[in-house]
Amino acid sequence: MDVKVSRRSFLKGTALTGALTGLFTFTPGAREKLMGDGAADALEYRRVDKPTYETVGEVGRFDNRNNAHSRGYWDESQSYYLFGSQGMTALHDTVKNIAAGTPEPGFDHRDLSLFMSSALLFKVGSFATSHIWEPELPPGLTEPYQTTPEEAAQTVKMAAKHFGASVVGTCKLNRNWLFSHRYHNENWKTDAKDLFTKVFGLEKGLLGPVMTPEERKTLQLPHVDDELPQEMNNVIVCGIEMDYEAYRRTLSCIEVAETYRAYSFDKFLIMHLALFINYMGYRAWPFGSYGPGLAIPMAVDAGLGEMGRNGLLINPELGPRLRICGVITDMPMQADKPIDMGVTKFCETCAICADNCPSESIPKDNNRTAEAVYNTTNYGVKKWPIDASKCKAYWDDNNISACGNCVHYCPYNKPNTAMHRMAAHMAPVLGSALVKMDETLGYSEPKDVASWWAQNPNKFHPRSTRK
Amino acid sequence: MDVKVSRRSFLKGTALTGALTGLFTFTPGAREKLMGDGAADALEYRRVDKPTYETVGEVGRFDNRNNAHSRGYWDESQSYYLFGSQGMTALHDTVKNIAAGTPEPGFDHRDLSLFMSSALLFKVGSFATSHIWEPELPPGLTEPYQTTPEEAAQTVKMAAKHFGASVVGTCKLNRNWLFSHRYHNENWKTDAKDLFTKVFGLEKGLLGPVMTPEERKTLQLPHVDDELPQEMNNVIVCGIEMDYEAYRRTLSCIEVAETYRAYSFDKFLIMHLALFINYMGYRAWPFGSYGPGLAIPMAVDAGLGEMGRNGLLINPELGPRLRICGVITDMPMQADKPIDMGVTKFCETCAICADNCPSESIPKDNNRTAEAVYNTTNYGVKKWPIDASKCKAYWDDNNISACGNCVHYCPYNKPNTAMHRMAAHMAPVLGSALVKMDETLGYSEPKDVASWWAQNPNKFHPRSTRK
Repeated sequence: MDVKVSRRSFLKGTALTGALTGLFTFTPGAREKLMGDGAADALEYRRVDKPTYETVGEVGRFDNRNNAHSRGYWDESQSYYLFGSQGMTALHDTVKNIAAGTPEPGFDHRDLSLFMSSALLFKVGSFATSHIWEPELPPGLTEPYQTTPEEAAQTVKMAAKHFGASVVGTCKLNRNWLFSHRYHNENWKTDAKDLFTKVFGLEKGLLGPVMTPEERKTLQLPHVDDELPQEMNNVIVCGIEMDYEAYRRTLSCIEVAETYRAYSFDKFLIMHLALFINYMGYRAWPFGSYGPGLAIPMAVDAGLGEMGRNGLLINPELGPRLRICGVITDMPMQADKPIDMGVTKFCETCAICADNCPSESIPKDNNRTAEAVYNTTNYGVKKWPIDASKCKAYWDDNNISACGNCVHYCPYNKPNTAMHRMAAHMAPVLGSALVKMDETLGYSEPKDVASWWAQNPNKFHPRSTRK
Repeated sequence: MDVKVSRRSFLKGTALTGALTGLFTFTPGAREKLMGDGAADALEYRRVDKPTYETVGEVGRFDNRNNAHSRGYWDESQSYYLFGSQGMTALHDTVKNIAAGTPEPGFDHRDLSLFMSSALLFKVGSFATSHIWEPELPPGLTEPYQTTPEEAAQTVKMAAKHFGASVVGTCKLNRNWLFSHRYHNENWKTDAKDLFTKVFGLEKGLLGPVMTPEERKTLQLPHVDDELPQEMNNVIVCGIEMDYEAYRRTLSCIEVAETYRAYSFDKFLIMHLALFINYMGYRAWPFGSYGPGLAIPMAVDAGLGEMGRNGLLINPELGPRLRICGVITDMPMQADKPIDMGVTKFCETCAICADNCPSESIPKDNNRTAEAVYNTTNYGVKKWPIDASKCKAYWDDNNISACGNCVHYCPYNKPNTAMHRMAAHMAPVLGSALVKMDETLGYSEPKDVASWWAQNPNKFHPRSTRK
């Protein structure tokens, strides 16, 4: 499980780097004056009428059966097919090493336990994302809540923040982003059955029989167009922050634990938010890690950021260090406008995610394309094509169930402070100079897992959002 | 539902108040220097060998059937018996007013919806707190995780923070705090059944028949001593922060919504933490809003604070603005020492919670007693006796399902900043001067609900913990 990744040797530094370093490490008082909350917040990103991605020709409706995860359930050509003999070596090795008393750092019994327990509501709650929740007015009320579109958007955003969203936006639903067919939720039954039994004391078998591999191959769910009525055309998109310190521990169970904690927490958020919308008198389809469509373009439409070279949403406050979830509804509301952060321009000067991708699934060149380069890719939107199967195979072989390198190394991944928000604004102009500065200042240096566990719990406030 | 509460008229001010006000509203730079994180954190509360509460004679084992909530299910003498005709007038009025198009401020359709939806995981998850979760080692492992008691405590605390605890401590279980008999969990079936159906698509009837009032009267669960093995003698106690801004909106649905959101989130935390402990190879009894014992004295034992005049835990960082939950386990671990914050001394000089208690359930005098003054009170620990039935009747008649005045008005209830942590340290010395200063600075002034909804969601970060 040793990881040797090539990293550009930028440590020589340049005059520019030196000057900027000086600026950024100024005395605290001066820095605050110059780059305090007020200064950074005064800089608003440009709102644009149309999202910044370019479409080329027809945009495909993605069949979620082709998602790299889904392929593990039916595509025999994948090394991780059915968690098969060739796949999941990291998990097998981890358990073997722990049992032998020779665990590797970051993969010992408590590290593994933290990851496994973090997935609880992710598994149990995935069922909640597989159907529309019908309106349920508080007893005695008959009329849905009526207000202006502006106040409706404000209301659902405040409700989302109340339930724990780190960032939130709204958009009109672009049905191009809907899957043609969903797939994954049907496959969680094995794990979820045990968890239902454990957590709620419900008898086994409750969720019906688990599908055989043969049935999975031929599974056909209804077309999402038939599942989702046209009137449900508003989306509330939320981002869930993942902890900066946990993501400094790539590759290890700690980073994976934080990934799955975020997936569990997004279930908490969307279930409560959907119920709120129901009590307001409207339909709600909560979507988390799996849903009826592609989450990233919806997040871009809702003004939460732009797509980076690494194929992830880059958010102004959290960079790529967040998970996306939300609710699709027929509650009328105003849509936010997308933003222009200049992410593509910056990513063209920076390939630090690609340089640090241990499976080489991210292109290092700038040949963006709208074609379906891999059998896991959708067509129609110009982007850096990611080899998702290769990426997933790498996780399974090396890091149990996720690899956070392209999140961790991204220069947009920083603690959410005024200074860093300011730097994000300057990124497209600074380009490669920012990348050099980043390396010089040691931001991308991973930390060891022992030091994560050794933090003072009274002073440790993960995901404390803005500062 | 109008609330007129008498408040001491302290606005004349004194020379001391003036001087302290000056000190606290110093220029930002100087204030930071004087009272920055470092300064406040250098002041550690005194750790003591024995908790600061005084016991008198034998300490009672509380039968949770006598809890004011439980009494609503079987005690016909309570006005809120079975949500009966005399009780719950606030909810009835709220719905009637909304339906008539004349909602009261803080009690309109969206306010009510926010409260109702916030209770989702509280209801569904309450079942998870009604039994011991058995160890479940990761597949392939046979031995529970072994380490030093110190590292075990550190490990569970970091796991608790990872899952979202605001504050955390450990203690040995004092079986005096266990109930003789639990009661409440058995009574959630009606609501939870519908929610299970809605959320997880499970068929109705799953949870078995709901008890009749007659059955509730005679319900006898096993003695908790029989349910909880002696070896399970370690407790991890966690506090869940509630949002300061929401609690400025007493009395209203917003404050109640935040209360129930915290109850829902504590289920998220304790379920994940219990599963973590299970994967480590140990038994876990997660407890949230209901559990096998009294949460406040366990929190005091774990060094999370002391009990105030209002009958609530007063925590050094959050004051009374938190909910308590945790896990009881047989995993060996070091216990924290209790702290001495001088809360009793301060509360003797301050009765702002009692002055602002609309139901007059909190004593204004200093006659603390260890006797069971009310039929909802335990005996054996000296404290200000709270009339919990009167308190609960007031909620039901005036604020739907909670009243946060004794949290909101408490001088320990402040945003968690270095300056306020410093002030909490000084509270027992300052005494009534602090109370006067508090009122002069307008901290206890409630705010209106419209201004809660109107906050900028991009800048609103509730429960952002320490600053």
